[in-house]
Amino acid sequence: MRIAVDAMGGDYAPREIVAGAVQWVQQHGGQIILVGPVEQLNKELANYDYDPAKIELAEASQVIGMDESPALALRKKKDASIVVATKLVKEGRADAVLSCGNTGAQMAAAIFILGRLPGIERPPVVVALPNGQGSHTILIDAGANVDCRPKQLLHFAILGSLYASSVLKIANPRVALINNGQEEGKGNQLTLEAYELIKNHSGLNFTGNIEGRELLSGQADVVVCDGFVGNIILKTIEGLAMFVAQGVSRELGSVPAFFKQLDYTQYGGAPLLGVDGISIVCHGSSRREAVCNGLQVAADCVAKNIVNLQKESLEV
Amino acid sequence: MRIAVDAMGGDYAPREIVAGAVQWVQQHGGQIILVGPVEQLNKELANYDYDPAKIELAEASQVIGMDESPALALRKKKDASIVVATKLVKEGRADAVLSCGNTGAQMAAAIFILGRLPGIERPPVVVALPNGQGSHTILIDAGANVDCRPKQLLHFAILGSLYASSVLKIANPRVALINNGQEEGKGNQLTLEAYELIKNHSGLNFTGNIEGRELLSGQADVVVCDGFVGNIILKTIEGLAMFVAQGVSRELGSVPAFFKQLDYTQYGGAPLLGVDGISIVCHGSSRREAVCNGLQVAADCVAKNIVNLQKESLEV
Repeated sequence: MRIAVDAMGGDYAPREIVAGAVQWVQQHGGQIILVGPVEQLNKELANYDYDPAKIELAEASQVIGMDESPALALRKKKDASIVVATKLVKEGRADAVLSCGNTGAQMAAAIFILGRLPGIERPPVVVALPNGQGSHTILIDAGANVDCRPKQLLHFAILGSLYASSVLKIANPRVALINNGQEEGKGNQLTLEAYELIKNHSGLNFTGNIEGRELLSGQADVVVCDGFVGNIILKTIEGLAMFVAQGVSRELGSVPAFFKQLDYTQYGGAPLLGVDGISIVCHGSSRREAVCNGLQVAADCVAKNIVNLQKESLEV
Repeated sequence: MRIAVDAMGGDYAPREIVAGAVQWVQQHGGQIILVGPVEQLNKELANYDYDPAKIELAEASQVIGMDESPALALRKKKDASIVVATKLVKEGRADAVLSCGNTGAQMAAAIFILGRLPGIERPPVVVALPNGQGSHTILIDAGANVDCRPKQLLHFAILGSLYASSVLKIANPRVALINNGQEEGKGNQLTLEAYELIKNHSGLNFTGNIEGRELLSGQADVVVCDGFVGNIILKTIEGLAMFVAQGVSRELGSVPAFFKQLDYTQYGGAPLLGVDGISIVCHGSSRREAVCNGLQVAADCVAKNIVNLQKESLEV
């Protein structure tokens, strides 16, 4: 197994990205291709002891910043690290690509270089949140597509459902639409129309609307939203968990172990679905531990062959 | 002070609404007009000991359900409890109206009966969340308007800022736009356009975008969003707080006192801004304690004369 890593993407690139990759090869034994300015990366690597057979380098002279427009950056920066890294997957030289950089650019690279799966307009990011039933609830799209059409929410429902059943092994996953009320008539223009499409799509176990309050209750296995709402949900959870951990620790003098499962920065990565290759999106603020965890997510997606699973299900 | 209460709105109406009103007159001494089917309300009131001079009744034969379309319901149900209760404010017979019922219908009643303040298209709901600095962050719109135009987000920014300065006494409040990234170019179509409008509006201390992660950090005094996103933020916080409280209590055998400040169901009410009268929106799942707290919010808004404060500021 060989994973291409965009060494230049993220708030702490390249130092923490390189450190995370080294940690992963030491602990898990796979192979890495670090993508970026080779000279700079060699300097970083000089800080560590590792098996040089496990880490290759691939030259990329440009970087796409967090605040750049993805479409424009992709046109102008042909030698950007995320572009070169994604091409390694397309060419079969890597089994997956991982980046902590600009998510829009990573998604655009995946669409243009890897290609979309049949019938899918926009690839969503999927994350699995721990819930009150001791299992996981999938949030999809967790941040890739900020403006969506109703049909795209239907695609997210389909992809989320098949990810839940084939990767998480949840039988007949319950799919819900996040909305501002449980009742069928609730919603904004987007969710009202998406509701109808999802309800009428055969093969989905659609349970209707779900409110933010029930998101972590375990009432649904798959929760569908556009990427703008998904981003805000995920980051609000993160911020609240931090706020509560601080408040409780002031009161008790220590942080209960329970908070560990809420530390989403440690989750590592989330796969982009609906594209013909494995691309793992990581938090921009990932440090080495999170990068290493993200690489483990990538390895898991490769082992489970999530692209083939999606292809098989989409062809049914 | 006299507050009109929609006794028929909410998941636990009329029992818990009536109980909350009785509790409030007993504890705080104001006057209440309970609006609904008088016969039914009298039966409920028979359960309590209270000063009959403090609680009047006003007949309303109809109720607007939680799942009804607000515009349609308002046209068809002229004698709905929320309509009758809002009219009492318009006619000067009550100083404020409070409802735990259909928020859209309450907002529509406020617009059509009380009227909008000059320059305001859509009235937002404002809530004050406790933050990590020990103060409060205002979330506006917290759920009234699910589809918004950029200009409406500007109005929310203006109303939120003046609420923070005049009611919460925060000098030069920092206003931020909730978004999927801090950088200026981030956002969906709505927030990208709203950013420009808010940035260019003189008199606002606009600090740019804020992410969900920083919502409770105290980095901003006023956080602006559309009501769909506001609803989901608020309810996600509520659900996560519940999830964490359960997890921590399983671990420790008790719930730390800190969680009390996160129990938004106990907050009571949130005022609708931008309308020419005081209308307090309460959680649909409010029980007596929350209704009583909501009435205290209403009393506070009356005492502070929030309508006049808004009028003065909007005329500047």
